[in-house]
Amino acid sequence: MVQQRKAVVVGAGPVGCLAALMLAKHGWKVELYEGRPDIRLLSSKVASQQRSINLAISHRGIAAIQSVDPGAAQRFMQSAIPMRGRMIHHVDGRLDSQLYDRDGQCINSIDRSLLNEDLLEEASRSSNVRVFFEHKIRSVDFENKVMTIYDASQSRESQVSFDLCVGADGSYSTIRRQMMRVVRMDYQQEYIKHEYIELRMPAARDGEGHPVFALDPNHLHIWPRKSFMLIALPNKDCTFTCTLFAPSSDLDQLGTAENFLTWFETHFPDALIAIGGKNLIKDFTHNPRSPLICTRANPYHYKDRAIILGDAAHSMVPFYGQGLNCGLEDEEKVVSFKPDDGGMEDVGLRRALSRYSQERHKDLIAITDLAMANYVEMRHLVTTPLYIVRKALDNILYSLTRRQATSLGTLAGNLSKELYVKGEPRGWMPLYTMVTFRPDISYDTVQRMAAEQNWIVNVVAGVTTAAFFVAGGILWARRK
Amino acid sequence: MVQQRKAVVVGAGPVGCLAALMLAKHGWKVELYEGRPDIRLLSSKVASQQRSINLAISHRGIAAIQSVDPGAAQRFMQSAIPMRGRMIHHVDGRLDSQLYDRDGQCINSIDRSLLNEDLLEEASRSSNVRVFFEHKIRSVDFENKVMTIYDASQSRESQVSFDLCVGADGSYSTIRRQMMRVVRMDYQQEYIKHEYIELRMPAARDGEGHPVFALDPNHLHIWPRKSFMLIALPNKDCTFTCTLFAPSSDLDQLGTAENFLTWFETHFPDALIAIGGKNLIKDFTHNPRSPLICTRANPYHYKDRAIILGDAAHSMVPFYGQGLNCGLEDEEKVVSFKPDDGGMEDVGLRRALSRYSQERHKDLIAITDLAMANYVEMRHLVTTPLYIVRKALDNILYSLTRRQATSLGTLAGNLSKELYVKGEPRGWMPLYTMVTFRPDISYDTVQRMAAEQNWIVNVVAGVTTAAFFVAGGILWARRK
Repeated sequence: MVQQRKAVVVGAGPVGCLAALMLAKHGWKVELYEGRPDIRLLSSKVASQQRSINLAISHRGIAAIQSVDPGAAQRFMQSAIPMRGRMIHHVDGRLDSQLYDRDGQCINSIDRSLLNEDLLEEASRSSNVRVFFEHKIRSVDFENKVMTIYDASQSRESQVSFDLCVGADGSYSTIRRQMMRVVRMDYQQEYIKHEYIELRMPAARDGEGHPVFALDPNHLHIWPRKSFMLIALPNKDCTFTCTLFAPSSDLDQLGTAENFLTWFETHFPDALIAIGGKNLIKDFTHNPRSPLICTRANPYHYKDRAIILGDAAHSMVPFYGQGLNCGLEDEEKVVSFKPDDGGMEDVGLRRALSRYSQERHKDLIAITDLAMANYVEMRHLVTTPLYIVRKALDNILYSLTRRQATSLGTLAGNLSKELYVKGEPRGWMPLYTMVTFRPDISYDTVQRMAAEQNWIVNVVAGVTTAAFFVAGGILWARRK
Repeated sequence: MVQQRKAVVVGAGPVGCLAALMLAKHGWKVELYEGRPDIRLLSSKVASQQRSINLAISHRGIAAIQSVDPGAAQRFMQSAIPMRGRMIHHVDGRLDSQLYDRDGQCINSIDRSLLNEDLLEEASRSSNVRVFFEHKIRSVDFENKVMTIYDASQSRESQVSFDLCVGADGSYSTIRRQMMRVVRMDYQQEYIKHEYIELRMPAARDGEGHPVFALDPNHLHIWPRKSFMLIALPNKDCTFTCTLFAPSSDLDQLGTAENFLTWFETHFPDALIAIGGKNLIKDFTHNPRSPLICTRANPYHYKDRAIILGDAAHSMVPFYGQGLNCGLEDEEKVVSFKPDDGGMEDVGLRRALSRYSQERHKDLIAITDLAMANYVEMRHLVTTPLYIVRKALDNILYSLTRRQATSLGTLAGNLSKELYVKGEPRGWMPLYTMVTFRPDISYDTVQRMAAEQNWIVNVVAGVTTAAFFVAGGILWARRK
């Protein structure tokens, strides 16, 4: 009988937990190591200090979880709050709802720790998975397939052998750094000039004193202010988690909490009413100003024995809500984690990992770029007239090419058929829809299709503008 | 009395040694730590396995050494072999000498270990510098200004305090990695698709059996073959150190030493005769295929207490021969390493380091780019007719603007005066001359001036070509 092969997964966040579950499903014996204490045992206060409180999960992340554990996927969806669109808050108090999808598809606001705890629970229940907390990786000897791990609770170092090492240990990944000693890895990290601060918007009260949402809960709220912005995502307890994104230099200049309050009142008057001045000052004083880092790497694997997934492989700015979705999708894209039978080197696995590095790279570069571009869209473009016109045009072309009811629709449909014949999806589709609701279209294809569509929208917009001028000219001549 | 402040320099290569000397000169107590054994005690065989054997030192590096230790600079120049220009070796055996500078300025081939040993000797002699070998940095606590160092010879860890930590520990710098834990550092590393192998060309023998150079010793020899190239630098013992640069994939395909020999004979027949088939096979079999890495970082310092210099801050491809020159120049550019008197934070030093990060960055990006661009020039462009015409034009404009003897010269001189009025050097100057022989012009200025000159050369070349056509047309019409 062939001995069961062992995988060590480093990092028990959502990506690490799902990797452990997926490997166990493929017959691996799995050990999952996490440097921090078990989040299930932490008080909510401590837990909430780790990363952002909630996040938007959408089709790609859900599909990945579903492929490993359909039950878990169902549970998350029940605890999530669907967000149908963006609610733009103008300075003058006007609200503007922009739906994400004309068919009503939603993204979902979910509690990060709830998602993580549930996946951790699933992993702990699996007979093939053993979970260790407060264990830090000191070093990895990839040639001899053994790593040195420090158990902080026992103050003890030990050697752990492995056949496969999966690094799901986040942006500042130790496994990535260890791999860089043996792999000629291209790597890049860049801090953008903006930072974020989390602010809590408490629940409002109805006539009977019950908690109610202070804003429409089925929207992702945005206060776009050109060089900075505020967003808010709903939580199950009727609170909102607000995140302020602004250039570090702007925040430095504000200095005191009083200045911050005045500045906040000028730019986000309605949000201030819902948050409350005292709460705002408390959060501004106590909550950290966190950096936004963007990292890229290539390749992601080493021989048949190591791979990095999720933020360890690609950290992106959070503006497309795709960071975690992409991390979970990574695992689906490793075509096969199936271990080979014995032998000094697992040729099948080596090929699978190598293929992953080659094929996944352009997708990861694409979504990293798209996420950065969406920041400009969110904090500024959404309020410009041209954006709104183009968005409308985008949606018209989308519905025309799908229905193909009118002759114009058929024309556009044929045009798009011409454009996307190389095994790619046909028809017109808004960029946001492709990124968020279509896991069947790779990020790279999304980016290319969007560029082509963008070109067409520009032409159509140009022709339309010209037609207006001609029509205007004729009218003017007639009146004279 | 104010206590003498302590600097720890990590890495005893040329950059680290010069940093130690410079700091000692400014009144610091210096400890210099090196992970490897003392190179002065190593056999030449072992020493030669570390990095490349010789390198080209030019005005920037010499000026930096001179500013700290004029005696050392003089000694190096005596042991160096001046190279007046490039000697292009064509496949058909033709030779083509291209001078680096019309006034005969040279770059200098120098033994790396000799340079390193001499600077190390100087540092060891200084009463303010203590040198430690086989000491590896484990971690640095920048807040408390203390680092953990492992003494490999004694197998013992100890804590070393410092006021200033200087990282001169090369491309894979530990100090840079430690700084990245506390500094929001942008960082990038990229491996180019080419590797290099060193090959030794033995001395030839004259009629009386004395060693003589097999090639002209006062040139840097290049065999440009478009996608790959061979270069050779002279050594004092009449040998040449040859370096073959080629895409990894090409070298992979060659496989066996026999295939390599055949391939080498096809592309570098004259070099093969001078090296000898047996020597070539030996070197190909035993010498490593080394990668070429390009790194960038920003910022380079942390508060008043840490800075990275040389390859630790910027590794470039070796094609402009500027890697070490730039590293040594770094130290001159830190305006003041002078420690302040006491106080919790050294405000003056903090400002100096911060100013260095801000002002040096664009120079380092410029030279990294120029080095990469010069690879294409060296392995391909130097052989193209257009390059030769443009090079000639470049030199004509250079001599015209300097002499200003003819009316055309005055015109061009005035033109260039118009161009470079903002405190920058006036007149025309070939790119290579600026990079290599003019430490007074920063790399960034060099890059900008070169772009502007390039534009003018293109216009002049265009006008000249048009004039030829017109003249040709007139001649043709007359003959008819």
